[in-house]
Amino acid sequence: MQALTLYTYFRSSAAFRVRIALNFKGLAYESKYIHLLKDGGQEKSAEYEQINPQKLIPSLADSDQVITQSLAIIEYLEEKYPQPSLLPEELDARAQVRALALSIICDIHPLNNLRVLQYLDKTLSVDENNQKNWIQHWVIEGFTAFERQLKKIDSPNYCFGNRVSLADLCLIPQVYNAKRFTCDMNSYPRINRIYQQCMEQPEFVIASPEQQADCDINH
Amino acid sequence: MQALTLYTYFRSSAAFRVRIALNFKGLAYESKYIHLLKDGGQEKSAEYEQINPQKLIPSLADSDQVITQSLAIIEYLEEKYPQPSLLPEELDARAQVRALALSIICDIHPLNNLRVLQYLDKTLSVDENNQKNWIQHWVIEGFTAFERQLKKIDSPNYCFGNRVSLADLCLIPQVYNAKRFTCDMNSYPRINRIYQQCMEQPEFVIASPEQQADCDINH
Repeated sequence: MQALTLYTYFRSSAAFRVRIALNFKGLAYESKYIHLLKDGGQEKSAEYEQINPQKLIPSLADSDQVITQSLAIIEYLEEKYPQPSLLPEELDARAQVRALALSIICDIHPLNNLRVLQYLDKTLSVDENNQKNWIQHWVIEGFTAFERQLKKIDSPNYCFGNRVSLADLCLIPQVYNAKRFTCDMNSYPRINRIYQQCMEQPEFVIASPEQQADCDINH
Repeated sequence: MQALTLYTYFRSSAAFRVRIALNFKGLAYESKYIHLLKDGGQEKSAEYEQINPQKLIPSLADSDQVITQSLAIIEYLEEKYPQPSLLPEELDARAQVRALALSIICDIHPLNNLRVLQYLDKTLSVDENNQKNWIQHWVIEGFTAFERQLKKIDSPNYCFGNRVSLADLCLIPQVYNAKRFTCDMNSYPRINRIYQQCMEQPEFVIASPEQQADCDINH
């Protein structure tokens, strides 16, 4: 097996997804910590730009090959190390799982990440209360729709079927984030059940922000 | 072959991606038009919610199975109808193509779509000039990074390698949108070259907004 290096930040939801995937597949990896707040954002350094021209977290180096974008990294891991799998075998089912994952990573997360909140704050002078409303609006919108999708699929413990999939890997960090931003989670019984179920499993627990060596926040 | 039905809106970038994919693979499909501005947004109807619980465009019905989320739809088409392919064969290359696609669909498009602009306008009372700055900011940020990625990959005519891939399917609608919002495109020679190259091909041209039967804007 080749050496894997993950460029990560403890609070990044996208890095959290990849950490779960690596744990789930039992792949050992080295962490390199890129702090998004220190030094004006260490991901903006010339050194990191050589690794990832998009200057975002995470990146995964597999020997001399660097993969960026959390979902591209997870699909790569799935193709290179297919067992245990994160996607079902049947084509329709694979599409359902990918659609659930994308509804988190395209329609909720991009609106609430650090660079967007910084733009609202610094460029548009949106006050703290309206920033919080912004965050909660996209979480409510996204989770309400996600809960409807889960109801249609009607799996008991996970997003799809009776085991962990790519969809859970994307959902759990988003729920974690929503809790951090004190979003009201009472309207999402299915999401809450999946969160509880997953957060009892070591692959998820040891991937969580407060378990990372670079975590500098007291939770 | 089974009957394919695409729920589409002429101006939706996400629907544009899927239209290109269907054309590229030579798949005939029926269009059902969901107007995002008429009737307060036809995607919000109870009828459409039965099709897509997330109430977003596009959705693809393949017989009785409905797939949502543009990238999940395209990956589904790629798996079900592998030729002509939209992803390279080699694992590293597939990851590079997916990462390029995701850098558009996660890091640019979600910030500039209609529902976000409506929130800026109606809830945050951001004026027209600052809305335009918002749009252009994320395009500049995203395309600058994309241009750096293209430089690193260094393919002459397409995003990756010497033929159309998933990355081009995501880039072209975003460029189309950027032009519509009069973004200055002078700093992106590689993106412009790919756009020109692709927009000479019928698969792209007939997928473009003004070629759709529901286009009600004079371009």
